[in-house]
Amino acid sequence: MSQFSHVNQSGEANMVDVANKASSVREARAEAFVYMNADAIALIEAGNHHKGDIFGVSRVAGIMAAKNTSQLIPLCHPLLLSKVAVDLELQADQNRVRIESYCKLEGKTGVEMEALTAASVTSLTLFDMCKAVDPGMKIEGLKVLEKIGGKTGHWVGES
Amino acid sequence: MSQFSHVNQSGEANMVDVANKASSVREARAEAFVYMNADAIALIEAGNHHKGDIFGVSRVAGIMAAKNTSQLIPLCHPLLLSKVAVDLELQADQNRVRIESYCKLEGKTGVEMEALTAASVTSLTLFDMCKAVDPGMKIEGLKVLEKIGGKTGHWVGES
Amino acid sequence: MSQFSHVNQSGEANMVDVANKASSVREARAEAFVYMNADAIALIEAGNHHKGDIFGVSRVAGIMAAKNTSQLIPLCHPLLLSKVAVDLELQADQNRVRIESYCKLEGKTGVEMEALTAASVTSLTLFDMCKAVDPGMKIEGLKVLEKIGGKTGHWVGES
Amino acid sequence: MSQFSHVNQSGEANMVDVANKASSVREARAEAFVYMNADAIALIEAGNHHKGDIFGVSRVAGIMAAKNTSQLIPLCHPLLLSKVAVDLELQADQNRVRIESYCKLEGKTGVEMEALTAASVTSLTLFDMCKAVDPGMKIEGLKVLEKIGGKTGHWVGES
Amino acid sequence: MSQFSHVNQSGEANMVDVANKASSVREARAEAFVYMNADAIALIEAGNHHKGDIFGVSRVAGIMAAKNTSQLIPLCHPLLLSKVAVDLELQADQNRVRIESYCKLEGKTGVEMEALTAASVTSLTLFDMCKAVDPGMKIEGLKVLEKIGGKTGHWVGES
Amino acid sequence: MSQFSHVNQSGEANMVDVANKASSVREARAEAFVYMNADAIALIEAGNHHKGDIFGVSRVAGIMAAKNTSQLIPLCHPLLLSKVAVDLELQADQNRVRIESYCKLEGKTGVEMEALTAASVTSLTLFDMCKAVDPGMKIEGLKVLEKIGGKTGHWVGES
Repeated sequence: MSQFSHVNQSGEANMVDVANKASSVREARAEAFVYMNADAIALIEAGNHHKGDIFGVSRVAGIMAAKNTSQLIPLCHPLLLSKVAVDLELQADQNRVRIESYCKLEGKTGVEMEALTAASVTSLTLFDMCKAVDPGMKIEGLKVLEKIGGKTGHWVGES
Repeated sequence: MSQFSHVNQSGEANMVDVANKASSVREARAEAFVYMNADAIALIEAGNHHKGDIFGVSRVAGIMAAKNTSQLIPLCHPLLLSKVAVDLELQADQNRVRIESYCKLEGKTGVEMEALTAASVTSLTLFDMCKAVDPGMKIEGLKVLEKIGGKTGHWVGES
Repeated sequence: MSQFSHVNQSGEANMVDVANKASSVREARAEAFVYMNADAIALIEAGNHHKGDIFGVSRVAGIMAAKNTSQLIPLCHPLLLSKVAVDLELQADQNRVRIESYCKLEGKTGVEMEALTAASVTSLTLFDMCKAVDPGMKIEGLKVLEKIGGKTGHWVGES
Repeated sequence: MSQFSHVNQSGEANMVDVANKASSVREARAEAFVYMNADAIALIEAGNHHKGDIFGVSRVAGIMAAKNTSQLIPLCHPLLLSKVAVDLELQADQNRVRIESYCKLEGKTGVEMEALTAASVTSLTLFDMCKAVDPGMKIEGLKVLEKIGGKTGHWVGES
Repeated sequence: MSQFSHVNQSGEANMVDVANKASSVREARAEAFVYMNADAIALIEAGNHHKGDIFGVSRVAGIMAAKNTSQLIPLCHPLLLSKVAVDLELQADQNRVRIESYCKLEGKTGVEMEALTAASVTSLTLFDMCKAVDPGMKIEGLKVLEKIGGKTGHWVGES
Repeated sequence: MSQFSHVNQSGEANMVDVANKASSVREARAEAFVYMNADAIALIEAGNHHKGDIFGVSRVAGIMAAKNTSQLIPLCHPLLLSKVAVDLELQADQNRVRIESYCKLEGKTGVEMEALTAASVTSLTLFDMCKAVDPGMKIEGLKVLEKIGGKTGHWVGES
């Protein structure tokens, strides 16, 4: 007797019915870190003062991916995000870039998968743009920071 | 004067020219871990003996995402993967699922972004299917394990 | 003077206006059969007792395709499915697999095209996975079984 | 011990390696029939003398879907179709429309799934455009007619 | 201090929040012209009397693109168009084809980007189909003709 | 007797066969202009000195669209672009932004549709980001500047 919402009693995958859920404002924030070597950090730092295209391209990729979540994650419901934002912060002393994403919806399902997808694809794009300098980067700590709305109300992840 | 291959001298993003690169067999393996609580581990363990749909759905999502990489990562080249594989292993004693992806191509560009994308979307799908039981999961350690082919030959990441 | 809803008086295709239609719960079920030879049946039967990946992959493909219907069928409206389910049943004595799909929506348009698309892509995926054993399979009897909601109320197809 | 090419020894789905297969010209033709009532037949017949948009829209949808096959069928390889064609023929005396699709590729994999997808989505689009007149249509007899190229040479389906 | 709605105070791109905007009926019409030489005009004119596939295919492409706008334009919101229409008119005496698109939505955001995208992709498809005869075509005058709904009410572009 | 390559003798659309064409390096450059009022020009000018996100986001959208051309234009062949670049230049004294795109391929088909699509979607994205300040912008002069490779050799458009 499964307690996973996406798996029925026979263990088969399904897209759960949300027709009877109440519509409300849903928000979610997610976070990820990309760890890189000193060379990559230095180059981002240099570029950041001028055009910022590395962060800019990564941000756009993350925003577009958030809108594409239901095409990537098989059992996610299609939904109409009302806002998506992605921030990147260079934390040079910790050899990493911190990524935070935010998604908002007035609807029937939570948007944490959309926030996670935004943070994930932002990280992958940053990786793609820096891999010539450091092919050994690691993406760490991808998680939901906070969820607002729906039956569970306000959920805050452990820090 | 940038050394990032995707950024030109003005700091603008571009898709680098691969027309003159030699075609060869390229392979890449990537890895990720999804950490979850004991309840989620127990339910996966139970389900795994029967239908395995949680791992099965996650694997399919990862394979499809690998084929979609150039639509997700703005400066990735479109390419014709000749093989994609994704393995999931429950490591209950470490409270995690280990994901390993493998991509292969006969072509002009490396396939590490495809392998990373496969591992990433497999992880996200696993998160989606287990989040009702544990909303505080973390995706950690997404990195390239190994790359074969191209100018750099055989590259192995640090363990 | 055309009576096809998608074709205007000049015979030109258009996407009909649904803005003034009432929003209600819509449901649809569709069905298809994949006929195959005894070798393919036997292999599915064998596999079915263990991992069920053939049915699992086909089901996931059908669910994802349902969400993608408005990108495949030119004049279908985009919509937000609240539930999609796909069942596969091996009917060995009739040399076939039966596929039944179900879609649900709270909205302004029927969802029978989504149910048909789910059943169709599930069938095609099953074909793809079994074609090495039987390249002569046939997909038969793809039709709408039942429609609920909207102006026509409850429609049941002839059996 | 599986003989399905897409399933490995553990019963897990995978995208089979085609890197070592020889590149050759591959062709495939597929067929489907859409059965409809006399009203729908009459309206298509009338329209067909003038604008032909019902057939035209269905043909375009089928061609576009063929190019999208690897995004719809999870374990299909991405490939570069060199030609796609779709024909529709009204067979009024048999209450049906016959659809024939043709795909061609110079590459390493067969293109029967692309031909089947083209015929399938052409059929679904025809259904969508005629369903206001006949919601009880049936799509029958979707199969591969002929395959040319690759290890198996020339394969012709039973009639 | 930016006044561009899609750019925040730091100059970073974001998808603006529409959750608090009122839902209303939105409409937009857009226009474009494809200029071509006499040979191309003559061939369209000839074909137009018969099958009209050049205009038909272009219209379908434009309609499908309108539904795909939020995947093409990074900061556009996903939305559920209730109607899309595209008209093409051969204006032989001016050596051009005029394209007019129309989009409608009951929702929170304007649909002028969707109308522009429909007109743009219709133009590009027409270009693709005629380029063997005239590779020097020009697409001119792509603009919004009229917008209805939302805070600005009824906006009409200068003629 | 049609001379349009995409239309057969019956006037039906088809995707022409390129299997027998020789593979060679193909290049194409396209151009477009976005005309806007003084307020929009001033704001871009201001922003351009700092973050450049308006140009950056538009460029990324154009590059991604080039890779997506065969999904947008029904009869375009799928292909593997080896390079895509997009440049934007503010020409304040002419009240416009000039967009130039460049695509390159080693393959069997020209890439002018890809270059046109890149320039077109870059223009549309620029429109989207500036429309709050000037809803009356016009996109003008979208054309192919130059084509290299294939049977026609080096083609240069009239200036």
